[in-house]
Amino acid sequence: MIDVAILGSTGIVGQRFVSILSNHPFFRIKEVFASKNNSGKSYIDAVDWMLDFEIPEDIKNLKIKSIEEGIISKVVFSALPKEVSYEIEDILSKEGHFIFSNSSSHRYDKFVPILVPEVNIDHIEAVKYQNRKGFIITNPNCTTSGIAITLKPILENFGLKKVLVVSMQSISGAGLYGISSMKIIDNIIPYIENEEEKIEIETRKILGKFSENGFYPNKFDIEARCNRVPIRDGHMIVLFIETIEKVKVSDIIEAMENFVGEPQKLNLPLAPKKPIKVFNKNDRPQNILDVNLDKGMVVSVGRIKESSFFTFTITSLVHNTIRGAAGASVLNAEAAFKLNYLRI
Amino acid sequence: MIDVAILGSTGIVGQRFVSILSNHPFFRIKEVFASKNNSGKSYIDAVDWMLDFEIPEDIKNLKIKSIEEGIISKVVFSALPKEVSYEIEDILSKEGHFIFSNSSSHRYDKFVPILVPEVNIDHIEAVKYQNRKGFIITNPNCTTSGIAITLKPILENFGLKKVLVVSMQSISGAGLYGISSMKIIDNIIPYIENEEEKIEIETRKILGKFSENGFYPNKFDIEARCNRVPIRDGHMIVLFIETIEKVKVSDIIEAMENFVGEPQKLNLPLAPKKPIKVFNKNDRPQNILDVNLDKGMVVSVGRIKESSFFTFTITSLVHNTIRGAAGASVLNAEAAFKLNYLRI
Amino acid sequence: MIDVAILGSTGIVGQRFVSILSNHPFFRIKEVFASKNNSGKSYIDAVDWMLDFEIPEDIKNLKIKSIEEGIISKVVFSALPKEVSYEIEDILSKEGHFIFSNSSSHRYDKFVPILVPEVNIDHIEAVKYQNRKGFIITNPNCTTSGIAITLKPILENFGLKKVLVVSMQSISGAGLYGISSMKIIDNIIPYIENEEEKIEIETRKILGKFSENGFYPNKFDIEARCNRVPIRDGHMIVLFIETIEKVKVSDIIEAMENFVGEPQKLNLPLAPKKPIKVFNKNDRPQNILDVNLDKGMVVSVGRIKESSFFTFTITSLVHNTIRGAAGASVLNAEAAFKLNYLRI
Amino acid sequence: MIDVAILGSTGIVGQRFVSILSNHPFFRIKEVFASKNNSGKSYIDAVDWMLDFEIPEDIKNLKIKSIEEGIISKVVFSALPKEVSYEIEDILSKEGHFIFSNSSSHRYDKFVPILVPEVNIDHIEAVKYQNRKGFIITNPNCTTSGIAITLKPILENFGLKKVLVVSMQSISGAGLYGISSMKIIDNIIPYIENEEEKIEIETRKILGKFSENGFYPNKFDIEARCNRVPIRDGHMIVLFIETIEKVKVSDIIEAMENFVGEPQKLNLPLAPKKPIKVFNKNDRPQNILDVNLDKGMVVSVGRIKESSFFTFTITSLVHNTIRGAAGASVLNAEAAFKLNYLRI
Repeated sequence: MIDVAILGSTGIVGQRFVSILSNHPFFRIKEVFASKNNSGKSYIDAVDWMLDFEIPEDIKNLKIKSIEEGIISKVVFSALPKEVSYEIEDILSKEGHFIFSNSSSHRYDKFVPILVPEVNIDHIEAVKYQNRKGFIITNPNCTTSGIAITLKPILENFGLKKVLVVSMQSISGAGLYGISSMKIIDNIIPYIENEEEKIEIETRKILGKFSENGFYPNKFDIEARCNRVPIRDGHMIVLFIETIEKVKVSDIIEAMENFVGEPQKLNLPLAPKKPIKVFNKNDRPQNILDVNLDKGMVVSVGRIKESSFFTFTITSLVHNTIRGAAGASVLNAEAAFKLNYLRI
Repeated sequence: MIDVAILGSTGIVGQRFVSILSNHPFFRIKEVFASKNNSGKSYIDAVDWMLDFEIPEDIKNLKIKSIEEGIISKVVFSALPKEVSYEIEDILSKEGHFIFSNSSSHRYDKFVPILVPEVNIDHIEAVKYQNRKGFIITNPNCTTSGIAITLKPILENFGLKKVLVVSMQSISGAGLYGISSMKIIDNIIPYIENEEEKIEIETRKILGKFSENGFYPNKFDIEARCNRVPIRDGHMIVLFIETIEKVKVSDIIEAMENFVGEPQKLNLPLAPKKPIKVFNKNDRPQNILDVNLDKGMVVSVGRIKESSFFTFTITSLVHNTIRGAAGASVLNAEAAFKLNYLRI
Repeated sequence: MIDVAILGSTGIVGQRFVSILSNHPFFRIKEVFASKNNSGKSYIDAVDWMLDFEIPEDIKNLKIKSIEEGIISKVVFSALPKEVSYEIEDILSKEGHFIFSNSSSHRYDKFVPILVPEVNIDHIEAVKYQNRKGFIITNPNCTTSGIAITLKPILENFGLKKVLVVSMQSISGAGLYGISSMKIIDNIIPYIENEEEKIEIETRKILGKFSENGFYPNKFDIEARCNRVPIRDGHMIVLFIETIEKVKVSDIIEAMENFVGEPQKLNLPLAPKKPIKVFNKNDRPQNILDVNLDKGMVVSVGRIKESSFFTFTITSLVHNTIRGAAGASVLNAEAAFKLNYLRI
Repeated sequence: MIDVAILGSTGIVGQRFVSILSNHPFFRIKEVFASKNNSGKSYIDAVDWMLDFEIPEDIKNLKIKSIEEGIISKVVFSALPKEVSYEIEDILSKEGHFIFSNSSSHRYDKFVPILVPEVNIDHIEAVKYQNRKGFIITNPNCTTSGIAITLKPILENFGLKKVLVVSMQSISGAGLYGISSMKIIDNIIPYIENEEEKIEIETRKILGKFSENGFYPNKFDIEARCNRVPIRDGHMIVLFIETIEKVKVSDIIEAMENFVGEPQKLNLPLAPKKPIKVFNKNDRPQNILDVNLDKGMVVSVGRIKESSFFTFTITSLVHNTIRGAAGASVLNAEAAFKLNYLRI
């Protein structure tokens, strides 16, 4: 059992880290960090717990630490806000910690992979070039997680030329206090700050190549339009995709259904049985029905049809705080462990 | 003052007809129709009123008629369900009634215009070829209303090649009992039956030409993906548009802002000051803020930007039961009246 | 393993029966019933599944039967609508079936218990007087389930004189198609048909005595006001309670926390560890946090305070389709099994 | 026309002040105040406008002032947050300003009335004893507004002994950024800080007597339990009321329907035709249907029935930011103007 620390353990993503890492077969939560004013409190007193089950018993009374007090665990899960994550993750990784970060701050660094183990497990090698005693491995933005997994079997089998994305994103993506209820109940907001840029950059990096000179983003074009809707969990993503090869809808469906990745082969604890669940009923996927399937780690897709302007269209649903955040980081750590990247 | 009848007067669209036509400068509600089992009741007793103001005083006690009892008013507004509208509208128009219909059943008939007066007022001439004593004029599907108005200044100024649509549609579009609350609260449904087909067919017909041989749909390509979201009113529509001419975003904005149509020139009572309101703030339009602007008759647009795959992208918001339904029919009737098509 | 049948297996409560009875240590789902038009279909094709996990594998392909085809299983769980439940349950129980019914139709019969095993397990004896080869055991109305469990430790320890109830009830209480989304999104409806009467009658029967002459309802007075709010799951109930004995808030809390019932003593599979969870934070219980605790079988209470007009006030939350419906029936069957009432 | 200033003009209540006072027959908005960091901006740039119509044209370009810059208008409407309102309102009123405040900070002062003109117009005399060049007149807490108006005809006709209140309150009551969407979508929070105390104190003061020695609160007992529900506008209030005299439900209804207050007699511009609208349909009032009736100034009531423990029960709905906040203040100012309290 490897001791781990959680940075930003009291936020929405931090709480997901706690729930996923509690009773984990590889990892044991040793330290929970939060902002200074919570330091010294027990986790149960510091957290504004938002999940519909109880805080795991063994975590309730863990004492909250602040980063100034130092960190013992070598393996660190980070749900830090962007404002502070860059520096803290940089220092800790240089000191020898293995950082699995949900923050965007290092995602675009030269040798930091944005890892989705089903998609680009080979990118993990980049950490060897980080010139740190430890390393930083990031996972993508929540929406990008769903997109990258959806695109992988398409890219592999038919090649990718163009990807157009229109998303309908849930409120949990903005964090515990991110969106006032007055702003979103009975409303749509047709914009999410920086989200479209993140999707456009990260998707290409994830689906690109890594060499010792850095990452070579895939060259397909991608454009995104992101919208906020009054839903608690799950980002629904309408995609229009142009492939390099000619392809029929039945080929697409077959490629999606046959897709398995490294986590499935390595039998990682948090890996879904299959990365993608294909629905052929017109009215699926749906948030209330499908977002929690297979521990919230599966990407559900449906409405696969030929498109007038692209090769085909598809609608994907991803659990934004599990597959798109904490679950993604934990799966990365599981992969790193199995592949012997956690030299502890 | 012209006496008018409302068919299907107790549904969501019927109620909007009642509210818009009450105190109208041209029209006076003379008859309200509903299904047989309500026949003889006063309107207030028959209707399950859903608007946030009172039923107009002069309508409250109008007796509900059933279509079997016959209809006196020459001008008829129809919010009939599709199952019965084809035949009833057909018969009444042959008998000499002027039908302004929100139903889809006659929209694709050879000489029935789908009229949006800002867009294709000349199509009204088609009624002369209907070979009926009266006529049928339809308005488009709710989402199509917003799309056609958005596209008109683009088509006129720069030409249209391709239009891609992804919509997020409110529940009122499905009628008073259309969607169970268990199906949509906290949920997205990525499909609306027949909606995509309607958009694809109607938009081209509206933006096409009419000659004495019938309608020639415009030849641009169009594809739509429609989603239901838990919002009461307003359909939000993300559009990607390819123009024939090269064009800059500033040109688009200018064309939109300068756009006025026939209703504005004719000073029709229900016409919005301008058909389109352009927002330049990133987070607009929004349902709770913009759907009711200018009596719910204006189409609000925002997020106009260059696109990678198309010329530009734009997000439009339309009030689905006003601009997209009852208001659309009434505006058609106002135009018909001013242009002397109501020979009563 | 005892074979069981589920009547009304495709509705909201029917689906909860399926999910709770699948992999049950005592019972095995042998037959699933639904209306005639679904007869012969596999369960997966007939049901409009609404839960956020998959239909259990072994149930997916069970063939739907209609009641006319006959029923083999002795143990029957009924989620039939009121219109048909009276007669069907009557006939089946006379033929020797053991009916565990969520329907209200027999709840007020002379020898039919409304059983809540933590509250009135001794009422189960009533089935001996039913003069049927089998029997009918009902569980209470969803809101009443929460009320009866909340009141039990109060009644036992301090006696009950008066109970005032104001409820805020979720939409799932009205079934899959019970409430149109247009009626409830962003709205409160201050009335639920027959609900107040059910609460007033059932609570007294449950908390009353059974003798061979029938049930003697408890004599405390009770009054209820029920409201519908736009929430998916969980009924929140504000109670004002007058006890016979004088009592302090600390006594109430102690009585609630110490309360265990027969299901806990018998270690029934679906029994929550404790029937009641007491919160002392002012802002609890909450639906999104507490409704699913302990398999949805625990009643969460909070805001226990002295009252000006009653002895004290308390707010209770019950999962209406689990503790208040399917879970209640299953717990009744578990108790009946352990107490040897299922003579099969 | 009297020039007026609005303090806290950019919040939810401030925006309601702007919308109600624009085009007012007595008052003209001369100054709009907000926090220092907005000082100098035009109103349209400073405000995060949340209403579903446009900012009034003449207000859009008013320059935001900060209180440090001084205030010219004698008549001041205050929507200041509690933290700063006490001192600012105190100073301004001493300097000669007439303050109509929605803040709670002075509500309990010895000579400051909590004025509801339909209920206690005579309390306005208290301002003569304030020993200020100007005065402070407050309006009640939003929920209390609805309660006080509901109780007035009961008190007057039958006397009041006991009032029990259970409320279901909308999110706008907590201000623009008061409640995170993650906290309330699909949820009920069974507690609102300080709300129950405010209701209990304010209702008695409003319905009490004023003499030159101060206010004598009415002696009826009152107890409240407040809940937050995911609704945009309108507080729904279930009341149980014990009268001094015996009374039938028909008497209650008659008293409510006959009730008119001073604003109706004085024909004040914002006064509703009648203060109370009585519904006899079981499922009314409802937020989406009734909250905006008569400019949002009418209190809608329904479900009037005999009660077991009290004389009767009734459900009231009040528009919390209009009748319960900005509209209440403006009606107070209209009354003060008509009664010659604004000696300018």
